[in-house]
Amino acid sequence: MTAPDMTRSTAQNAQLALMLEVSGTPKPGNVDREREYDDLKFEQFLAGAVGAFDGLSLAADGEPVGRAFERAVAGMSQQQGGNTQFGALLLTTPLVAAAGEGALTRDNAEAVVTDTTVEDAVNFYRAFEHVDVAVNDPPEGMEALDVRRGSDAAPAIRERGLTLGELMEESAVNDGIAAEWSDGFSRTFEAATGLQESDGAVSNRASALFLALLASEVDTFVVTQHDTETALEVRDRAQDVLAGDENPYELAQELVEREINPGTTADIVAGALFIALERGLSV
Amino acid sequence: MTAPDMTRSTAQNAQLALMLEVSGTPKPGNVDREREYDDLKFEQFLAGAVGAFDGLSLAADGEPVGRAFERAVAGMSQQQGGNTQFGALLLTTPLVAAAGEGALTRDNAEAVVTDTTVEDAVNFYRAFEHVDVAVNDPPEGMEALDVRRGSDAAPAIRERGLTLGELMEESAVNDGIAAEWSDGFSRTFEAATGLQESDGAVSNRASALFLALLASEVDTFVVTQHDTETALEVRDRAQDVLAGDENPYELAQELVEREINPGTTADIVAGALFIALERGLSV
Repeated sequence: MTAPDMTRSTAQNAQLALMLEVSGTPKPGNVDREREYDDLKFEQFLAGAVGAFDGLSLAADGEPVGRAFERAVAGMSQQQGGNTQFGALLLTTPLVAAAGEGALTRDNAEAVVTDTTVEDAVNFYRAFEHVDVAVNDPPEGMEALDVRRGSDAAPAIRERGLTLGELMEESAVNDGIAAEWSDGFSRTFEAATGLQESDGAVSNRASALFLALLASEVDTFVVTQHDTETALEVRDRAQDVLAGDENPYELAQELVEREINPGTTADIVAGALFIALERGLSV
Repeated sequence: MTAPDMTRSTAQNAQLALMLEVSGTPKPGNVDREREYDDLKFEQFLAGAVGAFDGLSLAADGEPVGRAFERAVAGMSQQQGGNTQFGALLLTTPLVAAAGEGALTRDNAEAVVTDTTVEDAVNFYRAFEHVDVAVNDPPEGMEALDVRRGSDAAPAIRERGLTLGELMEESAVNDGIAAEWSDGFSRTFEAATGLQESDGAVSNRASALFLALLASEVDTFVVTQHDTETALEVRDRAQDVLAGDENPYELAQELVEREINPGTTADIVAGALFIALERGLSV
């Protein structure tokens, strides 16, 4: 007798991707299975991923991505660590929506972005009410659109008629996740292919991918959290790890001590894991 | 503006309990965040817990526990590691059902067991078709009721009119999870209270609870997998750890090398975590 089909759903693959991302170790600077902060623990990432499920399910079921994302963040925030995977959810939600509509291709993901509305932008802002997220100050004259204003920014967003896709386009230069939204998720899809072509335990592939991505581009979250100089140092030292000139475990320890968290890079790993799982990567 | 309620549901608490259990370290002999087997990895436990969700949801929604359990196991088995948390699901499913019906009390959990039917027993057997579970040979004359027969045992179960609760009662002497079913889940509820009264990260409390339970009673899964002598040794050495005479990390390493897995003890930790989460334990 064959077992009835219980294959993971699209939303379950997204949830699992969040968990596999945080399970990869070493992942210099970020929480992983073997490193955590006193106020941000591995188990809080698991609770965050459990809580994000309902919002991810909305995205898979065709709800507008802004609303689905806001719900995912609201669910994620039901733990004591604060922001665990806000950026990973922001990257993954449109991919889940594309998968829910049919095939998870770059074209379909771009169409999800193009189809976003002003209401999606309003709900994106609302998501910032659930957790504290490190963000840049808005450009001069754009204070009305500071994401930290949450729902209070809604009139300004509506007045300008900005869709979520347009908002992301404006942030793309400073934010690696917004850049993915504005570029057909090119790095994320490419990383997914890399994951599929590698071997071994999935969480080990995820940590190897993390290091490769960290070495390839400056992490915009580190720029926001610290400064460009620090972000360049992290990128260069990841290159040293790949060249065999630096121990990744020592780098991981040092970055945790200095509270340098290359979060954007981790978010792209999560997005890539989701794509790979949807394409049949087995765990 | 207050965030709309996104508190974890009962099924989500059960799912999180499974994940927190496997995250506790050290947990001598079992897979945890820092120890795994080549053919049974930490990430496969996460995938198993993700997959078990639909079955757990059925239990919370009032579906018969046998059917809900069989669906949870079918979902759990959608990963390459085989049996990750069969016993934890068997222990947790009736507790989820009790929580779904109202209050998660021992009385209500006992009522769930009392109310089980012959069809629940048939579905319990069906669950064994999804994964290989180490079990004892049936007593002489009871070969027709060997769980490894899966659905093929259905006529024998129906002929005898055995409910799932009655089946558990018959296995209680050799199986720590069946003993919990037959005794109002006394160890599990007591362990939950211990978890709530302790401090620190939840996964650390879970590993401390694991050691305390391991020291207190022989693990019936170790008896099944190896023999009584081995199980007694494990219990005694856990007592040594508690007395400070043995290093838990060294014991963990040794038991993994000897492939001694005190799975029943881990299952009770998972059940206790679920009860504690339902009672408001915060992560």
